[in-house]
Amino acid sequence: MPAVTPFLCVDLDRLRRNVRVAAEFAAARQVALRPHVKTHKSPEIARLQLAHGASGVTVATIGEAELFARHGCEDVFIASPLWLDERAAARVRELAEKATVAFAVDSAAGAANAGRLLGRTPVEVLVEVDSGQHRTGVRPEEASEVATTAVRAGLEVRGVFTFPGHSYAPGAVEQAARDEAAALAAARASLEAAGVEVRVVSGGSTPTFQHTDTSVVTELRPGVYVFNDAQQWELGTVPPDRVALCCRTTVVSHSGGRAVLDAGSKLLGADRAPWATGHGRLPAYPDARVVLVAENRAVVDLGGAPLPRLGSQVDVVPNHVCTSVNLVDDLWVEEAGGLRPWPVAARGLNC
Amino acid sequence: MPAVTPFLCVDLDRLRRNVRVAAEFAAARQVALRPHVKTHKSPEIARLQLAHGASGVTVATIGEAELFARHGCEDVFIASPLWLDERAAARVRELAEKATVAFAVDSAAGAANAGRLLGRTPVEVLVEVDSGQHRTGVRPEEASEVATTAVRAGLEVRGVFTFPGHSYAPGAVEQAARDEAAALAAARASLEAAGVEVRVVSGGSTPTFQHTDTSVVTELRPGVYVFNDAQQWELGTVPPDRVALCCRTTVVSHSGGRAVLDAGSKLLGADRAPWATGHGRLPAYPDARVVLVAENRAVVDLGGAPLPRLGSQVDVVPNHVCTSVNLVDDLWVEEAGGLRPWPVAARGLNC
Repeated sequence: MPAVTPFLCVDLDRLRRNVRVAAEFAAARQVALRPHVKTHKSPEIARLQLAHGASGVTVATIGEAELFARHGCEDVFIASPLWLDERAAARVRELAEKATVAFAVDSAAGAANAGRLLGRTPVEVLVEVDSGQHRTGVRPEEASEVATTAVRAGLEVRGVFTFPGHSYAPGAVEQAARDEAAALAAARASLEAAGVEVRVVSGGSTPTFQHTDTSVVTELRPGVYVFNDAQQWELGTVPPDRVALCCRTTVVSHSGGRAVLDAGSKLLGADRAPWATGHGRLPAYPDARVVLVAENRAVVDLGGAPLPRLGSQVDVVPNHVCTSVNLVDDLWVEEAGGLRPWPVAARGLNC
Repeated sequence: MPAVTPFLCVDLDRLRRNVRVAAEFAAARQVALRPHVKTHKSPEIARLQLAHGASGVTVATIGEAELFARHGCEDVFIASPLWLDERAAARVRELAEKATVAFAVDSAAGAANAGRLLGRTPVEVLVEVDSGQHRTGVRPEEASEVATTAVRAGLEVRGVFTFPGHSYAPGAVEQAARDEAAALAAARASLEAAGVEVRVVSGGSTPTFQHTDTSVVTELRPGVYVFNDAQQWELGTVPPDRVALCCRTTVVSHSGGRAVLDAGSKLLGADRAPWATGHGRLPAYPDARVVLVAENRAVVDLGGAPLPRLGSQVDVVPNHVCTSVNLVDDLWVEEAGGLRPWPVAARGLNC
């Protein structure tokens, strides 16, 4: 049991419901669900997702892939373009002995480098295309050059993927889903015209996955949906009662007529999109806003509601749950009779 | 040695110089220097500060106080208002057996509660006043009410303190230093008028401490100055060659004609002040800007400079070094012949 607040707290019923709803959605449309486990970084939750029919897991780094493979995940996709060196290639080779492994490529040079270092290792690559977020990925019409370079370098190409991250803005979901489908369809056509077979067309984000064109996409990779967060609440992706993680805090000050909580950016994270109304949301105070976060303190304007008394506990939903989870060694799961720790086993595995 | 990038890297010569410059400044003005060690969370660096004459350390939580006391810091000030419960009070009592302990109070209720729980424990309190940041603290004229309540509750009052955090904005330093001096002088007068002796008047932040009115302030508590960061660089507090910590990354993609690095908000943090020009700065590319951070990737617009080649290493200075350090288990210190780990022993001690 955590000695005192603040700590991150999981509502297990809501978590299970979120996992089930997404699994049922994917099953009904006959698309694979390969959740991004960087959100929770927790083997226990990955097992729950796999038990509900997930086809494998998505991760961001080789270190995360190693961790989840060690915990029984047999099919791992590293959805970030890698630039391999000898040491990283050795890790990928070792990983491929334990699990089915794929990773992202988004340049001909990256594909050639990976092929040179990995030789005959049984790994696959997916070509990342940029569908509008402008982070990583090539333009759809450039996908075939990356894919054919990969093939020539001795790599097996599984298909194409994108992350429609520009869906994280008010009113942007439907256009982002259309952009995703258009980019993936064009990338698939680009590969097929070059004679490269496409077995997987992978997309999906928490805001978009229920809007994805499943006549184009064969695999969905949402991550945040297991917990949801203040961003999803404010975007309207889910109602607040689908949020399964919060930060439990204590009111330590009434400075300036506001509630000052004993958690700050070291638990809530500092992520704040331009459209976010604050640094998190309080389920018990829907009109309240977190107007300032320091590392260990958050200042809440109650929006007219009476100040919670000094020493009382208040729950805050972080803006972006993935970065919040990465700040702790354990999540605390509420159960009858108390709290049980769930290790965030993949915390901080940045490489 | 870290297996591969990304990792946080310390320039030991610059760190030592930063520690020495601040120590010499405080010594020349005959004010105490009590650095905030939440910046580095590292016993090795606290020892260096104490060896240069620091009067003690400042921390943000009881957990940090326990950690630094265990590592030989004999004088610890917890500079956040606490709301104690039985368990927290027991920890403070145990801590007071090992070290000289003081903590913040910013309400009469908080002082009364602490006095009730701590009984005759030999701890002291400092009354926090708000000098313009509007985070925690009372108005200067209210300080005596808090102090006299503390005295009646059996607590020893050491003095008053503030954090002039509104200095973190372009052109704000001198006014913030004036606000700090005015608030602290008024708070001191408020306590003395009520018959409470004031032994310590504590202020200081990294942007302001060299502008602090040392006819008012008797103790300085900067934290960031040991490393500095992109915020201090952009505020002009120090030139870039005084920045002693960076994130070493590898260029993994040239998507969209920009350099995509293998580090994101999970190492750089997500802190971005409204006036910051991006999510960090690149010493080797002064015109470059980090235009986007995802959890594991940063996208850099080179500002006209040629793109660093794929696979090459690039250093990025995080915007806010305290939150960046809190993301890792070890800092890596550059020395002749390689890198040596320095444990971030107080990482994540939020309570």
